[in-house]
Amino acid sequence: MKIAFVVFDKLTLLDLVGFYDPVTRLRTMGFLPELEWDICGLDKHVADDRGLWLRVSRVGESLSGYDVLFLPGGIGTRKLCSHRPFLDWLATGKNIPLKASVCTGALLLGAAGFLENRPATTHPRLLDELKAYGAHVSSARIVDGGDVVTAGGVSASLDLGLYIVERLAGENAMRRIATQMDYPYQPSPEMLLVCPA
Amino acid sequence: MKIAFVVFDKLTLLDLVGFYDPVTRLRTMGFLPELEWDICGLDKHVADDRGLWLRVSRVGESLSGYDVLFLPGGIGTRKLCSHRPFLDWLATGKNIPLKASVCTGALLLGAAGFLENRPATTHPRLLDELKAYGAHVSSARIVDGGDVVTAGGVSASLDLGLYIVERLAGENAMRRIATQMDYPYQPSPEMLLVCPA
Repeated sequence: MKIAFVVFDKLTLLDLVGFYDPVTRLRTMGFLPELEWDICGLDKHVADDRGLWLRVSRVGESLSGYDVLFLPGGIGTRKLCSHRPFLDWLATGKNIPLKASVCTGALLLGAAGFLENRPATTHPRLLDELKAYGAHVSSARIVDGGDVVTAGGVSASLDLGLYIVERLAGENAMRRIATQMDYPYQPSPEMLLVCPA
Repeated sequence: MKIAFVVFDKLTLLDLVGFYDPVTRLRTMGFLPELEWDICGLDKHVADDRGLWLRVSRVGESLSGYDVLFLPGGIGTRKLCSHRPFLDWLATGKNIPLKASVCTGALLLGAAGFLENRPATTHPRLLDELKAYGAHVSSARIVDGGDVVTAGGVSASLDLGLYIVERLAGENAMRRIATQMDYPYQPSPEMLLVCPA
């Protein structure tokens, strides 16, 4: 099992890290000892939307072959939604069986053509923009379309991470990781929309 | 107003970023336009506890002169708690009027001598270790001792960030930032212990 965490300039770092923390605990806490991941981008470094620099571990390589593709959001998505080299690169992940996003990361999934006729969500203020990509939009906090799972604004990253943990490794793993994370919250049933492909 | 975000090898990135996101929105959303911050460390780069590399923006300089000192936790704290050069460096922040930590970041505050006879918390499993530094430990999610505010395990970073936002800029700023972050949760009253110096 291998995850591609996609990064780019002016991403919102918490979109990424709120998901990365619970999901990578699948390996560090022993639930999926074979789990691997890369920080994937088109440049050696990216700076988040507030100036913090990260190193990209896999630069400019095809996204095919991963099992999970993750896209954070951030103001940087606005330019990338019409940036052909970036979208062509994302398209190399077309066959990844599970694609996930937080906040405006969904706009990138949309711009890459992955959301046509698929249920999806994004930041509550940007649902109309997401609709333009042919998505069936919902204001739920997490929308699980089977092959594509999208979440709302930045703080939904933790809930999405735990949701994907449960999909990949079951409820017991999710509960133990949430306890280790000292996370006392969970989305109420109406915050979740599940409509498999 | 200037914040020092301290980083070190094998930090838990979400401890940092869950706090950094709401607090830096004080500037990006216009509540404290003069707010500045640095990513402070003893090396040019640090790698988090799962291998992601960050760039340090202020390397090896004194921590005096900041208004807020923030310490994340992570497995890297265990070594640093007895690493004299690191503790000597932290001691340069002794006069910073507001010190804050998430998870095992509190152990670093303790090892630096900042928690003697002060109320504090850390990850629920490590309260006894924190006690060894002379802290009056509590299992509350956020413990506000006035000059030192500590929080529990990693997911408490968001709650602590919003709590500090409210302390620095008021309830309206906190509510607007929480809404922009799409954060539907808040700590219940019994998760919070306020005992000013």
